[in-house]
Amino acid sequence: MKKFKSKYEILRQEIYIIIYGANTFLGRLFDLSLLGVILLSVFLVMFDSMEGIGKKYHDFVYVCEWIITIFFTIEYILRIISNKKPLKYIFSFYGIIDLIATLPMYLSFFIPSTSFLAAFRALRLLRLFGILNLMPIIGQQSHLKEALIASKNKIIVFIYFIVVVSIVLGTVMFMIEGRHNGFKDIPTSIYWCIVTLTTVGYGDVAPTTPLGQFIASMIMIMGYGIIAVPTGIVTAEYAKATNHNPELEKKRVCKHCTSFIYDEDANYCPNCGTKIENE
Amino acid sequence: MKKFKSKYEILRQEIYIIIYGANTFLGRLFDLSLLGVILLSVFLVMFDSMEGIGKKYHDFVYVCEWIITIFFTIEYILRIISNKKPLKYIFSFYGIIDLIATLPMYLSFFIPSTSFLAAFRALRLLRLFGILNLMPIIGQQSHLKEALIASKNKIIVFIYFIVVVSIVLGTVMFMIEGRHNGFKDIPTSIYWCIVTLTTVGYGDVAPTTPLGQFIASMIMIMGYGIIAVPTGIVTAEYAKATNHNPELEKKRVCKHCTSFIYDEDANYCPNCGTKIENE
Amino acid sequence: MKKFKSKYEILRQEIYIIIYGANTFLGRLFDLSLLGVILLSVFLVMFDSMEGIGKKYHDFVYVCEWIITIFFTIEYILRIISNKKPLKYIFSFYGIIDLIATLPMYLSFFIPSTSFLAAFRALRLLRLFGILNLMPIIGQQSHLKEALIASKNKIIVFIYFIVVVSIVLGTVMFMIEGRHNGFKDIPTSIYWCIVTLTTVGYGDVAPTTPLGQFIASMIMIMGYGIIAVPTGIVTAEYAKATNHNPELEKKRVCKHCTSFIYDEDANYCPNCGTKIENE
Amino acid sequence: MKKFKSKYEILRQEIYIIIYGANTFLGRLFDLSLLGVILLSVFLVMFDSMEGIGKKYHDFVYVCEWIITIFFTIEYILRIISNKKPLKYIFSFYGIIDLIATLPMYLSFFIPSTSFLAAFRALRLLRLFGILNLMPIIGQQSHLKEALIASKNKIIVFIYFIVVVSIVLGTVMFMIEGRHNGFKDIPTSIYWCIVTLTTVGYGDVAPTTPLGQFIASMIMIMGYGIIAVPTGIVTAEYAKATNHNPELEKKRVCKHCTSFIYDEDANYCPNCGTKIENE
Repeated sequence: MKKFKSKYEILRQEIYIIIYGANTFLGRLFDLSLLGVILLSVFLVMFDSMEGIGKKYHDFVYVCEWIITIFFTIEYILRIISNKKPLKYIFSFYGIIDLIATLPMYLSFFIPSTSFLAAFRALRLLRLFGILNLMPIIGQQSHLKEALIASKNKIIVFIYFIVVVSIVLGTVMFMIEGRHNGFKDIPTSIYWCIVTLTTVGYGDVAPTTPLGQFIASMIMIMGYGIIAVPTGIVTAEYAKATNHNPELEKKRVCKHCTSFIYDEDANYCPNCGTKIENE
Repeated sequence: MKKFKSKYEILRQEIYIIIYGANTFLGRLFDLSLLGVILLSVFLVMFDSMEGIGKKYHDFVYVCEWIITIFFTIEYILRIISNKKPLKYIFSFYGIIDLIATLPMYLSFFIPSTSFLAAFRALRLLRLFGILNLMPIIGQQSHLKEALIASKNKIIVFIYFIVVVSIVLGTVMFMIEGRHNGFKDIPTSIYWCIVTLTTVGYGDVAPTTPLGQFIASMIMIMGYGIIAVPTGIVTAEYAKATNHNPELEKKRVCKHCTSFIYDEDANYCPNCGTKIENE
Repeated sequence: MKKFKSKYEILRQEIYIIIYGANTFLGRLFDLSLLGVILLSVFLVMFDSMEGIGKKYHDFVYVCEWIITIFFTIEYILRIISNKKPLKYIFSFYGIIDLIATLPMYLSFFIPSTSFLAAFRALRLLRLFGILNLMPIIGQQSHLKEALIASKNKIIVFIYFIVVVSIVLGTVMFMIEGRHNGFKDIPTSIYWCIVTLTTVGYGDVAPTTPLGQFIASMIMIMGYGIIAVPTGIVTAEYAKATNHNPELEKKRVCKHCTSFIYDEDANYCPNCGTKIENE
Repeated sequence: MKKFKSKYEILRQEIYIIIYGANTFLGRLFDLSLLGVILLSVFLVMFDSMEGIGKKYHDFVYVCEWIITIFFTIEYILRIISNKKPLKYIFSFYGIIDLIATLPMYLSFFIPSTSFLAAFRALRLLRLFGILNLMPIIGQQSHLKEALIASKNKIIVFIYFIVVVSIVLGTVMFMIEGRHNGFKDIPTSIYWCIVTLTTVGYGDVAPTTPLGQFIASMIMIMGYGIIAVPTGIVTAEYAKATNHNPELEKKRVCKHCTSFIYDEDANYCPNCGTKIENE
């Protein structure tokens, strides 16, 4: 019995190395297969949606989707079994994505109207960040992450401000344009206002009265100034994060009292007064 | 009589604490109710505007709006009565918003065509900045505010410049496109020019003649360069505002050799080794 | 004769002070009248272009335009006569604008088809920068001007680059979309490409083939990255222009050899070796 | 035989100086002719695409295109022959462009359907960067190039992130809008999402259901925040590249007291007064 357990333990470790690792040949192969299956799965969802071709090969696509779903299910189970701390994986970022991406197919089996959840399968594309080793560039020692965290609160307040402004201006525009030209109710007018302030400008809703066009022009010019604010925040925070003076980091240490000496021109240790020998 | 006055004074203080404060249970409850009523009031204005549903429940909405208006009226009166300096509140930012947001309903009672003023009720959403305690993030010790104030004048001149350019180019485009394709008069052409320069681009008015398209392309590329200017101003001002090196501002001077001491924790002058008396 | 000349000289000076100056009551009055007439003149051009109302009051507008033109002509002549260096004014920025803005009306008298030159009358709005005293904000000691001059060359090369890219991509898109959906010839396709790269996006020309939409998506994402470049240039140059370290400007002067001492910690003049007394 | 060889060598050198150089009169003339022929060639491709005029002069354009192609072929051969290291030219940036721009015409002779490759002729416009001497501005000692290289990886990850987000959101929107209003399949929905996130906003595909418009609004506001990121990266990197404080890099050290000497013109050490030997 003990022998079987240790045998199982060895198998568990081997699977763990293949699935979680990327240094062995099999580990790399697994990563690339996963990459392929994810891309195929996303491609199938797209293909299925196309009017003409989609319907023709519907049965073929349906079978493929089930094969892929079973593949992902096996992968999910193996990830849980092979991991010593399965709960850590289950509640990790990738664990949740893997679950959300796999479940919909089973749900659609029981509740047909949930087929739209297939959209979440695309979330698995985020795994590519891990497989292609992209995270180090924006992750760990990243100034970008630092800048985004520093900017977060300000940008949230800013977005809230834009939403309030859009509600007020959207209501005003609805009153002016009066149910014509797409301004059919206040929510649509607010939608128009957001479309305008963000400089997207579809044109599906557009003012036609002179007063409406005048106020729209005001809103656009305002949006022109407003677009500068989030950019300014992110840029300045990013510049600050990357701007840690490297020279300050090369600070010396007093040989007598081991305190840091920040002043490059120091002849004497500012803490204990010992004369410093310049290297 | 005196007793009554002091009793009234106690009541006034209690109301003041509930309405203006947020530290007591009742004060917090009042804030949250206000938040709810404001959101409900904005939702009702939107709901009323919708073609199908709006008409069906019009009477219900109408009654609700009057109840909300009376609630806001009572709140407004209580705010004035409970405040020791009522004029300060009345002419404060929130005081004016509260009035502008409450009046329209009464006006629409006497003058039916002013119902469009209901738009101003959305202004009350700005109160959420106070209730949700968002102001500290962009307010008080905020670099963002500093940057926006520093950028204001330049951006105003910049906007004025854009307006003048739009008038000139709008007139030119009207001459070229000649009343066709939406360029039906000069104000519309100016509106088109602003839509283009701000990169909104609805497409409700768009050039169709080759020359018109050529000039439009020029305007767009120009707008591409122009969009950089307000962003540049805000970013640089924001960076400047956040960049005050705190270490440089706190430097001390050695009383013996008069050299600057950058290290805040220095006990001895790093230049001549004299002991420093800490103030 | 001499007396008359000096009398004329006095009159010339008085006119000069009224027209060019803004410190006397009459000078200020003249500026404000000019402001009014310019605004009226621009308003009239707009008013005249409007389909319905424009035609009705056409005669009235026509008379008004002639009155305004004569006013501007008199102003132009007075500016030349009253100025001691008339050529300097004539070839100055405002002198050229005044001429370009006044001429069209006379030209339209002889050559009817030149009425479109009325657009240039709007150029006079630039005078408002002078009248409203806006120039100091972006002019003289302005970092913005400095930044724009420093960025100019780079932005011109950048714009040239965008034009070349647009020509190449425009031609490619024309080949793909093949005369359909607005891509009717290569110039139109180039126009579409500029509309897309600058994120204006009218939608009057838009790809409909899957391949066309795919390439358009690539172009948009590219444009997304490209829009960052001019903004980056202007911002960095503006930041550099405003970032002259104020401490470096407080440099001391050696009392012996009068050379500047940049090093704040200097005990001896780095030029002549004299000991420095610290103030 | 030897004499002929040296004669050929002289001719080769003369051709080399004319074609590659720009300092001699003939070299400059060649550059300008090349500029003219390139512009003419691009103009012809455009002209040929125009519906009305294009067909009329089709034969004339066809002959012109062959003449230009032969001119470019001769130029290409001369560049190879006159160059001592022909392979270096062939595989250089301009060498590849020259080939890509010349080949299509010959290909279209054998395979008629490849006429769309004429688009690549526009690539030759990039030669203008060399002829007009624009490269030094963005090339060699350029901070811009440095900044773009430093930003490259981050922006690629960022673009990948946008593509993944677009696929997820595009699929969601397809499920919501359900084959109506242009959302005819998932690839089109993804295309819509990219059009929206980049703030281009054609409006050929636009949501009409309230839920679709709500989610679209969310996407736009998100895109508004996202647009700040690449701008922030490029700006900060550019600022860093231009910000190398030249004074800090040139600092010397006093041989006597080992303190740094920031003042480049210093004759005496500002710390101890020792005379400095200028290297």
